[in-house]
Amino acid sequence: MTSPRRAPGGFPVVGIIGGGQLARMCQPPAVNLSLTLSILSESADAAAALVVPSAPVGSHLDVDDVLAFAKECDVVTFDHEHVPPEVLQALVDTGVPVHPKPEALVFAQDKLAMRERLTELGVPCPAWAAVRGEAELTAFGDVHGWPVVLKTPRGGYDGKGVRLVGSGPDAADWFAHGEVLLAEERVPFTRELAVLTARSPSGQAAVWPIVQTVQTDGICTEVLAPAPGLDPALAAQASQAALTLAGELDITGVFAVEIFEIAGAPGTAPSYVVNELAMRPHNSGHWTMDGSVTSQFEQHLRAVLDLPLGAVSPRATWTVMGNVLGGDYDELYPTYKHLLARDPGLKVHLYGKGVRPGRKIGHVNVYGEDLDDLRARARHAADYLEGTVTA
Amino acid sequence: MTSPRRAPGGFPVVGIIGGGQLARMCQPPAVNLSLTLSILSESADAAAALVVPSAPVGSHLDVDDVLAFAKECDVVTFDHEHVPPEVLQALVDTGVPVHPKPEALVFAQDKLAMRERLTELGVPCPAWAAVRGEAELTAFGDVHGWPVVLKTPRGGYDGKGVRLVGSGPDAADWFAHGEVLLAEERVPFTRELAVLTARSPSGQAAVWPIVQTVQTDGICTEVLAPAPGLDPALAAQASQAALTLAGELDITGVFAVEIFEIAGAPGTAPSYVVNELAMRPHNSGHWTMDGSVTSQFEQHLRAVLDLPLGAVSPRATWTVMGNVLGGDYDELYPTYKHLLARDPGLKVHLYGKGVRPGRKIGHVNVYGEDLDDLRARARHAADYLEGTVTA
Repeated sequence: MTSPRRAPGGFPVVGIIGGGQLARMCQPPAVNLSLTLSILSESADAAAALVVPSAPVGSHLDVDDVLAFAKECDVVTFDHEHVPPEVLQALVDTGVPVHPKPEALVFAQDKLAMRERLTELGVPCPAWAAVRGEAELTAFGDVHGWPVVLKTPRGGYDGKGVRLVGSGPDAADWFAHGEVLLAEERVPFTRELAVLTARSPSGQAAVWPIVQTVQTDGICTEVLAPAPGLDPALAAQASQAALTLAGELDITGVFAVEIFEIAGAPGTAPSYVVNELAMRPHNSGHWTMDGSVTSQFEQHLRAVLDLPLGAVSPRATWTVMGNVLGGDYDELYPTYKHLLARDPGLKVHLYGKGVRPGRKIGHVNVYGEDLDDLRARARHAADYLEGTVTA
Repeated sequence: MTSPRRAPGGFPVVGIIGGGQLARMCQPPAVNLSLTLSILSESADAAAALVVPSAPVGSHLDVDDVLAFAKECDVVTFDHEHVPPEVLQALVDTGVPVHPKPEALVFAQDKLAMRERLTELGVPCPAWAAVRGEAELTAFGDVHGWPVVLKTPRGGYDGKGVRLVGSGPDAADWFAHGEVLLAEERVPFTRELAVLTARSPSGQAAVWPIVQTVQTDGICTEVLAPAPGLDPALAAQASQAALTLAGELDITGVFAVEIFEIAGAPGTAPSYVVNELAMRPHNSGHWTMDGSVTSQFEQHLRAVLDLPLGAVSPRATWTVMGNVLGGDYDELYPTYKHLLARDPGLKVHLYGKGVRPGRKIGHVNVYGEDLDDLRARARHAADYLEGTVTA
């Protein structure tokens, strides 16, 4: 393994476990800040491995790979939340700072642990229960209504590990593995929002304006920043809850809280419940790359290094992010040429990933004054790259 | 030499000759656009070599190094203007596209050729002459006034290769080398401005708002974007002249025209003359990294690849850039921590270079509504990193 090369002047090496797009998008701010990234990468052609000089190939499941990697780093952080607890513990035992810490990360890794802790802290959640079989699920559904949202506590993201079930027996296949599952009431939400914060080890914290996330088939396809027409009281409560959580859970780095907005009775204010937590830069924060004074990737680097955080004010009235999913056509370069010609204000962010249908391969940002126009431009660009529109 | 690794999807490799900060600052937009950079670098720890996976070490003066490097690239461009004509010609002969082309680049490499061509095209220049010895210099100075600005036609930048002489014999040492020199009248300018443009091989061109550059000891220390109080007619004329030059000289890539603003007689408009040309991203354009929809580095990549150009509109009322020069203290990291704490809106761009007194090691950008405040913040940050203020 070649050692990552530091910039002269005392600048540190930030190790990131996982070579996906989140690690990749840390490289532009790292260049500006004179920080060196080293990426423990699944493969030599992973998204992040293509853009940094030091990207040793290894597995986040292998203690030896992780420890050898960490030895060359001044701090270690993550592209994803899938590093197992025993590997995390071995990593912490080496003495290299790890952010977020395993004690916090467990609440993003284990949805049951998350629900327990949030409920203790008084953070609004959907009604929920740990269910060990069809009978417990049936009991829950009969109280809170069907269908029930059933989740595997670990390993899910982007709609994986989540399903709607209409009865206890509907879930027989999942219970067959003997796992304890998380049952949640199906919340009649009006829209999904996300609160993005960053917190440093010394406790400085910052929260970006709350955004609206639009999901299609369980995958985030569009983000509107800030969330249009958001009730100021709800915004203040949810922002405060995210900051409280960050502090109480001792979260370090960028931290996303996905929430459901719930309409109030006529004449009353809306409310919210927390859906999911993520302890890393998050898809709902990609708009910050072009729409905020400090992007979530720059902020994550600052936070894990315990550097002072940057300003989180928006740079435009509206910023719209559109996720680009893989389509049937894999020669993206000729496609994006046309797109750049059509919209000189479009900011394209591609991840260097091969196209597979439905895979997140990039996103676009546009910003300005006219939200409808921005949404149309972002939507067109994403559809065009996906191949679902051709003009 | 390891081959640079392309992103899947037909994305190209852009080769940059020279591993300085201009090449380095192309990496963030290259990541976003899924382009791969390969840098022919002076050393393994050059500014750009620290931030890209492919940075073969070699000399821009060595034809074999340059040709081996270019074989792996889809287009070749430059971090600096010092590649000799015979190496450029060998490079062109390989068939790989080179931008800017040698036929254009000569006007940035050779100030005498530049003056001749600009004069032919009717672009305003100071009075000038090619002088072959003390007698010719004396004749020029006696007509146009002393002191005369004397320049070596090749190899100068940042005030190097330029001096003021008070008489013919004053320049005896330079004439001793037998070189033809460029004599120019000393223009009574009110301030220095820069016009930054980009042009693609297919002829699309764009010009950023004209900026004011502030020089200290011949080195640009501050840029105000846009130039405060600029006469609109002068702005239009100078922008048009830059676009005309880009077209007439068939310049490709980013192109800077440094100009002197000259006060008109009372009640009449100011005028300008062209001081220097640079055919690459330019210090006067570093503000675009945070202050324009498209930065000069992204635009340069787009231009040399003949991709459609991005929008050049400013993102804030004012953007101020402050150059950071090396001071006596070489541990920059602890210093910049304090600076980030003091100003959460400061955008720091460091080049990964070791500190040497007077060496350009980074810059800062700030943007907003209050020009005086922005100038004070940029000035403080640059001085603090340089070590000339300590609080």
